[in-house]
Amino acid sequence: MNNTEAQKTTASPKSYVIVGGVAGGMSCATRLRRLDPNARITVIERSNYVSYANCGLPYYVGGVIQDEADLLLQTPASLKARFDIDVLVGHEATNIDRDAHKIEVQGIEKGIGTSLDYDYLVLSPGAKAIALPIPGIESAFQLRTVEDVQAITKRLGGKTKSALIIGGGFIGLEVAENLSNRGLQVTIIEASSQLLPPLDPEMAALLTDKIQGHGVRIATSTTIEKIENNVATLSDGSTIASDLFIAAAGVRPDIAIAQSCGLEIGTRGGIVVDDDLRTNDPAIFAVGDAVEKREFFDSGANLVPLANVANRQGRRAADAIMGRLGADPYTQGTAIVTIFGLNIALTGVNEKRLSHSDIEIESIHSHPNSHATYFPGAEEMHIKVIASRSDGRILGAQIIGGAGVDKRIDVIATAIKTKMKVWELADLELAYAPQFGSAKDPINMIGYIAENRLEGNFRATQWHEIEEAIETGVELIDVRDEAEFAQGTIPGAKNIPLNSLRERYREIATPNPIVFCRVGQRGHSAQALLVRYGINAKNLDGGIITWQATKGI
Amino acid sequence: MNNTEAQKTTASPKSYVIVGGVAGGMSCATRLRRLDPNARITVIERSNYVSYANCGLPYYVGGVIQDEADLLLQTPASLKARFDIDVLVGHEATNIDRDAHKIEVQGIEKGIGTSLDYDYLVLSPGAKAIALPIPGIESAFQLRTVEDVQAITKRLGGKTKSALIIGGGFIGLEVAENLSNRGLQVTIIEASSQLLPPLDPEMAALLTDKIQGHGVRIATSTTIEKIENNVATLSDGSTIASDLFIAAAGVRPDIAIAQSCGLEIGTRGGIVVDDDLRTNDPAIFAVGDAVEKREFFDSGANLVPLANVANRQGRRAADAIMGRLGADPYTQGTAIVTIFGLNIALTGVNEKRLSHSDIEIESIHSHPNSHATYFPGAEEMHIKVIASRSDGRILGAQIIGGAGVDKRIDVIATAIKTKMKVWELADLELAYAPQFGSAKDPINMIGYIAENRLEGNFRATQWHEIEEAIETGVELIDVRDEAEFAQGTIPGAKNIPLNSLRERYREIATPNPIVFCRVGQRGHSAQALLVRYGINAKNLDGGIITWQATKGI
Repeated sequence: MNNTEAQKTTASPKSYVIVGGVAGGMSCATRLRRLDPNARITVIERSNYVSYANCGLPYYVGGVIQDEADLLLQTPASLKARFDIDVLVGHEATNIDRDAHKIEVQGIEKGIGTSLDYDYLVLSPGAKAIALPIPGIESAFQLRTVEDVQAITKRLGGKTKSALIIGGGFIGLEVAENLSNRGLQVTIIEASSQLLPPLDPEMAALLTDKIQGHGVRIATSTTIEKIENNVATLSDGSTIASDLFIAAAGVRPDIAIAQSCGLEIGTRGGIVVDDDLRTNDPAIFAVGDAVEKREFFDSGANLVPLANVANRQGRRAADAIMGRLGADPYTQGTAIVTIFGLNIALTGVNEKRLSHSDIEIESIHSHPNSHATYFPGAEEMHIKVIASRSDGRILGAQIIGGAGVDKRIDVIATAIKTKMKVWELADLELAYAPQFGSAKDPINMIGYIAENRLEGNFRATQWHEIEEAIETGVELIDVRDEAEFAQGTIPGAKNIPLNSLRERYREIATPNPIVFCRVGQRGHSAQALLVRYGINAKNLDGGIITWQATKGI
Repeated sequence: MNNTEAQKTTASPKSYVIVGGVAGGMSCATRLRRLDPNARITVIERSNYVSYANCGLPYYVGGVIQDEADLLLQTPASLKARFDIDVLVGHEATNIDRDAHKIEVQGIEKGIGTSLDYDYLVLSPGAKAIALPIPGIESAFQLRTVEDVQAITKRLGGKTKSALIIGGGFIGLEVAENLSNRGLQVTIIEASSQLLPPLDPEMAALLTDKIQGHGVRIATSTTIEKIENNVATLSDGSTIASDLFIAAAGVRPDIAIAQSCGLEIGTRGGIVVDDDLRTNDPAIFAVGDAVEKREFFDSGANLVPLANVANRQGRRAADAIMGRLGADPYTQGTAIVTIFGLNIALTGVNEKRLSHSDIEIESIHSHPNSHATYFPGAEEMHIKVIASRSDGRILGAQIIGGAGVDKRIDVIATAIKTKMKVWELADLELAYAPQFGSAKDPINMIGYIAENRLEGNFRATQWHEIEEAIETGVELIDVRDEAEFAQGTIPGAKNIPLNSLRERYREIATPNPIVFCRVGQRGHSAQALLVRYGINAKNLDGGIITWQATKGI
């Protein structure tokens, strides 16, 4: 008798109950089925839909996804037929008896209750919108479920001409684009000082013009005092009338059911799990937006409400239940969002957060083209990579641009996962043809810049150090061409184009000036050249583009 | 006195001579300038252009790149002004006196000779077209230099209605697309049994329909006997008249100058260099297409005529000359080509070659969508990943499709460089939004499949094993829907759709059948389900798509 036969005839089937039927919960359920063909598997889902594409919801609102059925990846019937999984939609877990291994479940509309035994319970309750302390906020729509978008789309067309979006994060921007594309006048209200708070400010500054260029109004460092009769009163005292309000101010873990049965909640407000996604109750696992993750670079607790992480955790919880341990427990929060054709992507940790740590960092800004400029259609992109100065480890990246942003962030995300040193990016062999990149890809160039920088031969000045440099009278040399210089430069800068620097270097009066160009490359050549004459210049990292973007900050 | 002062005042300037002013040579020259501001740097280039975009040449022929000036990244004048580099175009090296550290150089047209002293010499002579032993081949154009494309474009328009391209490799396909798009009737003659020989045959088979669908004729396993009066006689005795012949049958290292001065030539026919790009003469370095590289997976010598590798080597040779050693010496040959909107990319080593090695491999074929299917515009792509069965190391990948092919090959190229295990692809955190990928990206899915496969629980059958299975009467179960089955299946296969397998599994008569579906995913679910009933099925890797593609082989 082989193993399979034994499994078939001797063990009594296990019972697995999963709370939450999207992303993490559904991944866990189907993985459990594949690993344990005999088990009873039940999924409890609060909404009326299971396994739906929540990341597509903003695009259904915008009409990009036109058929609601496209959002529904599975139905209870298809899951039953294909996987023998029982799904209870429109139900919620009301009580967990950990000693008895029982969970009570109730139909939300009809209120009929039932009780399920479990060998293992997996909680994947997700996150819920942050409750904003704004009088009248209940008139704002949310964007978490299929029901939410059904309610929003019912309101579109006809008299609905304007929308006010509370929150300028990922979801807020996606909704802003989609509603703007449907012809609504859109306003984004963001409490912090910039859009997309996961970005560093000089990168976020690159978005503002683009978004405003499409007629979307942006108010940062602004909160809402109250909403009354379709009029929002803002923290600066002004008012905005809007036909539609959407709350997208972020989410927090939905820990109600976990808390009610005494599971441990962490400092960040999520369910605490070990590396195998197990809670402090060995029979209960938890995955997805509701749980605290471990940061890749310092192992600290963090919240990362992303679908790809939830899916992975769902699978890993199933593995752990089946005794397959050893999952990679770290998260780095890779994400991407598109607004008006501008792709904004990030991975790892940003400089804002690292400034509160002991890690000394090197930031590298560059503005390469998406592919060889001699091939039509190249678009400028903006890259920031952050590395540890002591050991070169890559800690984070932020990229903004058109084509090829998603590719470069994925390469850096892979580099972070594999603990690459930033200068090793130079040696990556990436696929080159002129429509896809350059013989020295933007990623390779980051490696070359890092190599120069971290070896100590070529020092950089950062955009936020320019103000002090101006105040203290540091000599500023703009090595761009005369025509570029004439378009505007840093206050007090003198123009010596790179191609004439060899003849004119004597015009530099001090031994430690700052040189700069448009993106940093000519500045680097100037810096290398000036060494010949005993001048140790610093090169403005990211050139005047990065500095200029921040003038509005 | 600091280092810079010392450098400025004491050392006598070094002299560097670089033979070859494209890609590797130019990268080396500019890097040398940045590291050694005082040196004399001279570049010798045989053609009349320096630092030109040779990867753009096919697109200039096709009119995609319209202005010849766009191909010229630098000119001798700009290199002199910006970098103080002396460039002699239209010159070739005629003799190297290694003892005297002298190189003789001659103008190709005017024949005026000169002699240059060097402290270090860098050879970057590139590759030249393989000389085909075909009578009349001299009437065929090549595609290596700006002069070549000038000659071709002069012949286009007017009476030139057809083109015959000798060679179905990267350059051959690029030229085929570009000439076809200009309205020429194009025929590709390829000596081997498939297009793009770096691909494995089942992947190359996916191209043929697409290319023929655009009216390009393809003859594989075919050579040319002679070319006479614009008529080619083929190895099968047939003849093809053509207005234009283009030789793109591959290249071999240009080792003439290296050989003439007694530098070591390797078994693969390239200049032998050590890990720091130094030849057997310590004062002479060599880079680019002319040198032998070291394979990433077995350290064997190989030829990799790619621009990105040449650029990197140019820089690393400059580093080594300046005493900065420790470059990464390995190459993995990442490349991409586009033909009629189909992107074909590869990295690492293929199965054909590994079949001659001792390495036992696991091949994984998948056919995922470029992004979430619920978001408009998703395109199917075809991925093959090859890993070592003993330790899981990723050895190679081939990808064919539309959007997102370049991204996935770059992620896998990075994974190969960092020696990732194939199952670790499952845990990569890649940027997900529905227009860019899936919550489980195609890359993650490869990791999941590998995990299942290499743990030994879910065994696979490969496309090339089906023929024997049919002959020996192995039971074949097609688990697709009835409608799909009706469109055609593997001879002898029985249809039991996955969703009814639970009720109908008793119809399977043998304990070790092969199950299959369209791409492999439902087959995997079927396999997992059948275990419950004591049936140990193998799943057809890549599903019927991979098998079907190979029916024409």
